[in-house]
Amino acid sequence: MQADRPSNTRLALIGVGLIGGSIGLAARERGVAQEIVGFDVDAATLAAALERGALTEAAKSIEEAVAGSDVIVVACPVGQVAATAGAALRTAAPDAAVTDVGSTKRQMVAVIDDPRFVGGHPIAGAETAGVEHARADLFDGATWYLTPTERTAGVGLERLMRFISGLGARPRAIDAAAHDAMMAEVSHLPHVLANVLVSQTARALERSGEHLPVMGPSFRDATRVAGANSDIWTDIYVSNGDALASEIDALIARLSEVRERFAAGDARAITEWNEAAAADRRRLLEADLAGGPVCELRASVPNRPGVVAQVALELGRAGVNIVDMALYPAPDMRSGAITLWVAGEEAAERAQRLIADLGYPVARA
Amino acid sequence: MQADRPSNTRLALIGVGLIGGSIGLAARERGVAQEIVGFDVDAATLAAALERGALTEAAKSIEEAVAGSDVIVVACPVGQVAATAGAALRTAAPDAAVTDVGSTKRQMVAVIDDPRFVGGHPIAGAETAGVEHARADLFDGATWYLTPTERTAGVGLERLMRFISGLGARPRAIDAAAHDAMMAEVSHLPHVLANVLVSQTARALERSGEHLPVMGPSFRDATRVAGANSDIWTDIYVSNGDALASEIDALIARLSEVRERFAAGDARAITEWNEAAAADRRRLLEADLAGGPVCELRASVPNRPGVVAQVALELGRAGVNIVDMALYPAPDMRSGAITLWVAGEEAAERAQRLIADLGYPVARA
Repeated sequence: MQADRPSNTRLALIGVGLIGGSIGLAARERGVAQEIVGFDVDAATLAAALERGALTEAAKSIEEAVAGSDVIVVACPVGQVAATAGAALRTAAPDAAVTDVGSTKRQMVAVIDDPRFVGGHPIAGAETAGVEHARADLFDGATWYLTPTERTAGVGLERLMRFISGLGARPRAIDAAAHDAMMAEVSHLPHVLANVLVSQTARALERSGEHLPVMGPSFRDATRVAGANSDIWTDIYVSNGDALASEIDALIARLSEVRERFAAGDARAITEWNEAAAADRRRLLEADLAGGPVCELRASVPNRPGVVAQVALELGRAGVNIVDMALYPAPDMRSGAITLWVAGEEAAERAQRLIADLGYPVARA
Repeated sequence: MQADRPSNTRLALIGVGLIGGSIGLAARERGVAQEIVGFDVDAATLAAALERGALTEAAKSIEEAVAGSDVIVVACPVGQVAATAGAALRTAAPDAAVTDVGSTKRQMVAVIDDPRFVGGHPIAGAETAGVEHARADLFDGATWYLTPTERTAGVGLERLMRFISGLGARPRAIDAAAHDAMMAEVSHLPHVLANVLVSQTARALERSGEHLPVMGPSFRDATRVAGANSDIWTDIYVSNGDALASEIDALIARLSEVRERFAAGDARAITEWNEAAAADRRRLLEADLAGGPVCELRASVPNRPGVVAQVALELGRAGVNIVDMALYPAPDMRSGAITLWVAGEEAAERAQRLIADLGYPVARA
C-alpha cells in the first residue's frame, strides 16, 4: 500500500496541536505529503508547529489552507469540528477527502452530510495536549478509526485509508454508533466513575469529620482521571451523552446485582463474581497486548528516590519492557510496594530474578 | 510515650505473614518487646518468620504462644479472626490485651465479646502478602485504627496504643461502624467498581465482536485492582457487605443524577459536575499527603526500556520523590506519556526542569 503512496499530496491541517502537529511531523518524516499547510485559530500554536517542522507552510485562514489540498484533517476539539469541517468543505475541491480526529463520531457524521467527509479517530496521545508534545511516531501501530456512511465517496475513503497507513497507523472502518458505544465504555465511563467516586468520598469524609487515612492504591488508581480537563471532556460527554447514559444504565444494573450478593452475604456467590472479574481482566489485557500473556510481579522496595529507577534500569538493561506499573507508597513514603506488568512468561521470570538479585522481595501475583 | 516503653513485654503473634511478620520485625528492631513468640497454621511460614528474625520463638499452638503474653496480635485473614481470637482469649491472661489486624471491624467486635479484645486495623501493605515481604518499617507513620467499645478494658487499650506507637505507627481510636463505612468507600467500593467495569467491557466486546483498540490509561487505571485475590477479598466483602451495599446505593444515586445531565446534554451542568470532581480530587490528595500541594507533571517519552529509569533516577539524584506515577504507553509500546505526581511546588518546578533537560517535552497538568 505504501509503495505507490502519493508523495505529491497536499495535506491541510486545520488545528495543529498535539494531534495535528503529530500528523504533520509523521507525514513529513514518512514522505506521505509533499506540502503540509496548516491553520490554527491560535497564532502561537501555528508558529510553533511551523517551527517544529510539522508544516511546510502556515495559512492565514481555513480557506487558504484548504485550497488545492487533497487530504484535509480537522484536528480541533470535538465541539468545534462541525463548524470547522463545514467551513473547510465549503471551499474544498470536489475530490478532496476531509476527516477529523474527534473522540466521538455519531454527532458529527450526522451533521456533516457531505460525501467528501469521513469521521476519524486515532487512538493516541490524549494525555498531553499541545504542539510541544507532538511526535512523528505518535501513531505508530495505533488503531485509527474511520466511520464511513453509505453516502461516503469511495475514492475519498480509500485515499484516507492509504494516508493513515502511510502515517504508520492502522486504519479501521467502524460504524459511528459502534465506535461511540465502545468509547463510552472503555474511556468515557471510567472517567465518569472516577468523578463520582472522588466526590462521594469527599462528601462522606466531610460529613464524618474523618480524614482519609491514606489514599490507598485502589482509590488512587480508581480516581486518577477524576476531573479531567473540562475543555476537552465537556464536549465528549455532551456529544456522547446518550451512549454514556446507556452504559451507566448497564453499570447500575450490574451494581444492583452485586449489591444483592453483598447484602445476602453469600460467600460463594461473591467469590464467583470476583473470579469472573479476574478472568475478564486477564482476557482484556492479553487481547490488548502483543508479546504473550501479561504477567504481574509484586516487589517490596524502600521508597527512596532512585529505587524505581534502579529496578526499571535493571530490567531495561536485560531488555525487559514494562507494560504497566503501579507504585503503592507506604504512608511514611519511605517504603512501599511496586507492581509491574510485563508481557510474556519468559520476560516475567527474568524480571523476577533480576529484582530478587537487587535484594528486594518479589513474587508473581 | 516511648521513653518508658515496656521492654519486658512478651508479644504473641498468631499468624506471621506479611503483617504479623512485620510486627515482629518492628517490635524487635525498636525494642518494643523482649520476647516475640509466634504461631502459624502454616509450618513453613512459621519457620520463615523465625529465620527472618521476626520471632524469638516459634510456638506449637495458639495456647503455647498466648501463655504468659502481655500483647497478643491475631494477624490472620478476616474470616478466621473470630475463631482464632476466641481460642487465644480462652487461655490468655486476665490482663492480656488482644487485638487483630483485619480489614473490617464491626463483625468481629460484635462476635468477640471480651473486654480484653480491641479490634485493630493497620493501614499498610495489603498488596504483597507473605512473610518474605515483611519489613520492620512497614508501619512507620501509618494510621493504625483501634475500635474499642464501651466494654473495652482501659488498661488493655492503653497498652495497645503504646505498643502501636512503639512500632512507629499512629494509633487512632474509631467507632467500628465508622471504620467499616470509611473502608467500604475508599477501598472496597473501588474494588467493586473495577470488577464491574472490567466484566461489563468484556461482555460488550464479545457481543460486538470488536477488539479493544488499546487498553486506554483511564480504563487501565480503573480496572487495575479488578479480580483481586479472592482468599482475602471474599472475607472482606462478606464481613462488610451491608456497608458496601449502602455505598453502592449512594453511588447508584450519584450515577443516576449524572446520567440525567448526560441525557439532557446540558454542557454547563456537565462542566460544573466535572469541575467539582477535579476540586474534590485535589482536596483528597492534598489532605492525604504531607509536603505541600501535589503537583502533576506530564512528559512525552520514548517507551524504550530504561527511560522510566532515567527519569526517576534524575529526579532521585535531585532529591525529588515521586508520590505517584502512571505510564501511558502508546499502542506500539515504543513511545508514550508518563505522568508524575510530586509533592510541593518547588519540587515540581525542579522536576520539570530536570525532565526538560533530558530532552523530553514536559508540562504541568
